Amino acid sequence: MSEESPLKIDACFSPQLYSVYKDEDSIVVIIDIFRATSAICTAFHNGAKEIIPVATVDEARAYKEKGMLAGAERNAIKIEGFDFGNSPFDYMGEHVVGKTIALTTTNGTQAIDVSKDAYKVVIGAFTNMSALCDWLVSQNRNILLLCSGWKNRFNLEDSIFAGAMTAELSKRNPNYKLGDACLALDYLYQMAKENPMKFLSRASHKERLHKLNLKDDIRYCLQPDLTDCIPVLENGVLVKMKLR
Amino acid sequence: MSEESPLKIDACFSPQLYSVYKDEDSIVVIIDIFRATSAICTAFHNGAKEIIPVATVDEARAYKEKGMLAGAERNAIKIEGFDFGNSPFDYMGEHVVGKTIALTTTNGTQAIDVSKDAYKVVIGAFTNMSALCDWLVSQNRNILLLCSGWKNRFNLEDSIFAGAMTAELSKRNPNYKLGDACLALDYLYQMAKENPMKFLSRASHKERLHKLNLKDDIRYCLQPDLTDCIPVLENGVLVKMKLR
Repeated sequence: MSEESPLKIDACFSPQLYSVYKDEDSIVVIIDIFRATSAICTAFHNGAKEIIPVATVDEARAYKEKGMLAGAERNAIKIEGFDFGNSPFDYMGEHVVGKTIALTTTNGTQAIDVSKDAYKVVIGAFTNMSALCDWLVSQNRNILLLCSGWKNRFNLEDSIFAGAMTAELSKRNPNYKLGDACLALDYLYQMAKENPMKFLSRASHKERLHKLNLKDDIRYCLQPDLTDCIPVLENGVLVKMKLR
Repeated sequence: MSEESPLKIDACFSPQLYSVYKDEDSIVVIIDIFRATSAICTAFHNGAKEIIPVATVDEARAYKEKGMLAGAERNAIKIEGFDFGNSPFDYMGEHVVGKTIALTTTNGTQAIDVSKDAYKVVIGAFTNMSALCDWLVSQNRNILLLCSGWKNRFNLEDSIFAGAMTAELSKRNPNYKLGDACLALDYLYQMAKENPMKFLSRASHKERLHKLNLKDDIRYCLQPDLTDCIPVLENGVLVKMKLR
């Protein structure tokens, strides 16, 4: 990166807006707090070898039929016949160790799909936030926080996490120039951080998960720093980043 | 509208996302605070008869060549050869009384263009906020706050205004169900309302306008309730709404 222009952080609220924010120099952080990116971090923390993100259920099924483990979620529900949905609790335990898993979700894997040609694509969640921020700051690059949203709509939980990332990154390097979305999210996170669970109580997707009795999932996904794993996309496949 | 499901308010941060939020029953409020929608309200308050919003400079020029008044702005600057840019101060005075004006702007007229087939499209700004909220509540309809943004990106001033609208509408009718974007903006506005000018000091477009020495425009556009005019789109043309 040139030394003259300041490093930038911006946030994009929907995969459908990615083309507007696209910038070949940026590292893209994929965010789908409830629950895809939280689950992906959990899988690698528990020893998964690779996750192949795919956009459609048919693609995931094709992997499954070849004998691979496969996860598929639509509208917050695990699709029948698959090994996993997108609950982090599905990805804990011996059954994921050393495994390659194909995964499709309503929102998160769509965000990976649109940004797959970026300079670098990494996976962010509250559960790996500090490790991710440390690494991002060390890279000296522009950062784009890509919120998966809900079916291309803005959602509150991804936005609050993007606000938390903005705050943490700015703390580590106060020279980042923040785009308008990050300025807004930074303020929003200041209001949310005391009690994110309560702050999210009126959010549409929390309501959706609450109806499905997924309160434990919500609580888990809002816990910071459970892992140092940073999942990174390499040749279309997510692997655990090797840090020095 | 059915009596069973609650009335909804949602906000869309970019014309490029409109297709996701589109809903045939909603009233769409077009928001481009710096400066198109503020200027449009000013024009009607000063007696303009009609404003024809057009997407391209060529279309505006065609109207101009037919002898009509025409405004054209790109990148915050009035285009040479046109009668107006998008400064509200351009639209004050005798020269607009009874006139039809063609207008194209970087963002605002694009937002009108994408939503023109909605149930109803109205123009919102701080300068007509109370009159607009009173009317919207009386309509008993879903409301979509369509932020024009900056070249399809989220911007802070349109978002804060959408937050102000959310707060004012909810005050008048606490039964509106708020989409996630409105929940976020409602919080954001609570932080901004004491001093919007200061709150916006780091915003990208305020910086842009500040460089162009447009501080008076910024101050004017943030003043609430200078007019009762509600511009409404009728057959592709903006006119002043006739209230009972």
